[in-house]
Amino acid sequence: MRILDLLRRLAQPHDSKIVLLVLDGVGDIRTADQLQTALEAANLPHLDALAGRSALGRLVPVYPGVTPGSGPGHLGLFGYDPSDPEADIGRGILEAIGEGLPIGPGDVAARGNFATADRAGNLTDRRAGRIPTEECERLCKGINLALAAALDAAPIPGLVVHVAPGEGHRFVLHLQGKIDGLPLSAAIADTDPQQLDVPPLAVQATTPEGEATAAAIARIVEIVERAIVEEPRANRALLRGFSQLPHLPQIPELYKLRAGAFAGYPLYRGAAAASGMEIVPCGKKFAEILDVVRAAWDRFDFFFLHVKQTDQAGEDGNLAAKIQVLEDVDAHLPELLALGPEVVAVTGDHSTPAPMKAHSWHPVPLLIHSAICSYGFADEFSERACAHGEIGTIPSYQMMSLLLANAGRLAKFGA
Amino acid sequence: MRILDLLRRLAQPHDSKIVLLVLDGVGDIRTADQLQTALEAANLPHLDALAGRSALGRLVPVYPGVTPGSGPGHLGLFGYDPSDPEADIGRGILEAIGEGLPIGPGDVAARGNFATADRAGNLTDRRAGRIPTEECERLCKGINLALAAALDAAPIPGLVVHVAPGEGHRFVLHLQGKIDGLPLSAAIADTDPQQLDVPPLAVQATTPEGEATAAAIARIVEIVERAIVEEPRANRALLRGFSQLPHLPQIPELYKLRAGAFAGYPLYRGAAAASGMEIVPCGKKFAEILDVVRAAWDRFDFFFLHVKQTDQAGEDGNLAAKIQVLEDVDAHLPELLALGPEVVAVTGDHSTPAPMKAHSWHPVPLLIHSAICSYGFADEFSERACAHGEIGTIPSYQMMSLLLANAGRLAKFGA
Repeated sequence: MRILDLLRRLAQPHDSKIVLLVLDGVGDIRTADQLQTALEAANLPHLDALAGRSALGRLVPVYPGVTPGSGPGHLGLFGYDPSDPEADIGRGILEAIGEGLPIGPGDVAARGNFATADRAGNLTDRRAGRIPTEECERLCKGINLALAAALDAAPIPGLVVHVAPGEGHRFVLHLQGKIDGLPLSAAIADTDPQQLDVPPLAVQATTPEGEATAAAIARIVEIVERAIVEEPRANRALLRGFSQLPHLPQIPELYKLRAGAFAGYPLYRGAAAASGMEIVPCGKKFAEILDVVRAAWDRFDFFFLHVKQTDQAGEDGNLAAKIQVLEDVDAHLPELLALGPEVVAVTGDHSTPAPMKAHSWHPVPLLIHSAICSYGFADEFSERACAHGEIGTIPSYQMMSLLLANAGRLAKFGA
Repeated sequence: MRILDLLRRLAQPHDSKIVLLVLDGVGDIRTADQLQTALEAANLPHLDALAGRSALGRLVPVYPGVTPGSGPGHLGLFGYDPSDPEADIGRGILEAIGEGLPIGPGDVAARGNFATADRAGNLTDRRAGRIPTEECERLCKGINLALAAALDAAPIPGLVVHVAPGEGHRFVLHLQGKIDGLPLSAAIADTDPQQLDVPPLAVQATTPEGEATAAAIARIVEIVERAIVEEPRANRALLRGFSQLPHLPQIPELYKLRAGAFAGYPLYRGAAAASGMEIVPCGKKFAEILDVVRAAWDRFDFFFLHVKQTDQAGEDGNLAAKIQVLEDVDAHLPELLALGPEVVAVTGDHSTPAPMKAHSWHPVPLLIHSAICSYGFADEFSERACAHGEIGTIPSYQMMSLLLANAGRLAKFGA
């Protein structure tokens, strides 16, 4: 990531404020059955008016044709090249950070699901009937007691283990320390078989370096499942996304700004925290997020706002719902602009076309407004207008330097 | 080529089929004397209709301003960055592979031309009056006998040498093995002076590592020319493009698909074979190629179809001929579409503008059709429509991942 060294050199403090509004999965496509994209079909008077005073363009999240998960999608927006192995960051870590766990260098985290298995040990529900969060919290408390007792009786020298509850049936497994003096490894295969009527997979290392950690986790899984074996629904634990913290250059030092993340879901808080942003607790709806942004306006220079519902509607194949989310964001947009940020960017971490019911690789519409953005090619925020916009089609990781430039935060390079 | 490691990781099997139709040198330019490009001037009802249901864009074969030969042009289309030294592949090797010679790692091949020299040894015809292929075959047979006899009498230990006839005055020189235990080198300058009224150039190494091989080849040239000295026309042999097999990741393993090449000319078969495709013998006209594709439809997932005549017409500066080739392709396009491929791409390996009578660097029109390509910006296949298309202007080597994505053959990257 050589370009980050250049940006670090050029970044300079300024009193300007930047708002990055991420409409998750906003990009859409036209097909024989869906003649308009969500942005085209929605009624967006404020976004369209803003587009008329903005530079437009498109972002390629990772590489043409490559569909990103939310982690790589967001790291790209924050200026990191997600195809760089140094930026490879697992979902386990992202969720653990997003839940506020004190993940440190060398720690290993995995995402956990409580699940239901029958008498024969075969899975009958991979989400344990979507148990309520309170039940998940009770289970995790019991598991942590069982882990402490078992590891007190027969320790794994140097290792600290605990689980933390997430929403519903979700939890995070967090390992700290070493095993017999050796560093932990995240080279562990998922134990979630991703299908029913089979037992969970055995814990297995994917490289020889992972074997000591895999053996420890196999024992941990035994302890966990013994602790919940009598539960009516959540009697199994499935693990996936074993991962460690990547060594990302941190945004405050890199770009010389105070960065706050306003995201209602753990994964996005995790990506922001891994980049060095401060996580500001907030709700999930755009209006709720705006309230928190307003209250924190003096504390930050850079505001990452994350709206999840566009992606959810796309994943559901529900164009009408996607349109409604966009129209709701549009209705509240004047409140955001009234705060007076010098730079406003609106884009997504990837496309989630309703016809595909999934993330996709299609380039993502981008709008950048500032007093010096240059504008005038279009008066609507849509895939087509953005394809023909002033910014062109660029990799996501090249957007951040444009935001800094529009904010007067990048010094001239060379004399 | 780090990105290939990412694509290898993401590529997944699928039952979808991809057709890549390469119209060699299809791109063209407008000048004061040629007010329309070949695509603009041609009547292409089927291609235009397909464009209306396709994502459009343009490919930059190597780098802005860099005119590619056919080798780099095609390697780019197959996903390799042709500016990467690892993808450097000489024309000698491409033709040798394309002729079906069993080229192995470490072998050296060069393209040969039979030529005519006068009594003083100066060249009077660099193509020996374009002798017929049968005469070329007879000459090569004699040369191989002479090489065997001479190297039997005074061997070059470890070296195996022979020549193979091509079309007309063309042949391939193929060296296998070692010289006194040292590997062969392709660091040998061309002996073709590229002009008349001078003698062929002496064999010379371009680096110290090439000297042993150069000395062996100097002896081989002596033997060859002694064998043909009494020929009325083909009394000299000119060599160029000394090269060795590059270590390209092979397409079946890399992209997890069965790839077939349907090309009537050796060079393009060579590029396809070097990439790991299976060469399917076929004719040179589009209709003949289609017959073979149809018969092989069940055997492959990826079909590379090569139409040469667009380039030939461009090289001849014959716009009318280029238009005619395009209209012939257009007339047969429905037969190709009737096979029902999930993804169809139409593009070229480079531009061959008729006004330039040569390959050029100009971006090449690209069309990608699939059920999820997203479309609607244009209803014609032309340089202008493609410049404003959904895909944007991308390096050729980024097209392959788009084809895989449209075919559902790339898994999501990261969580």
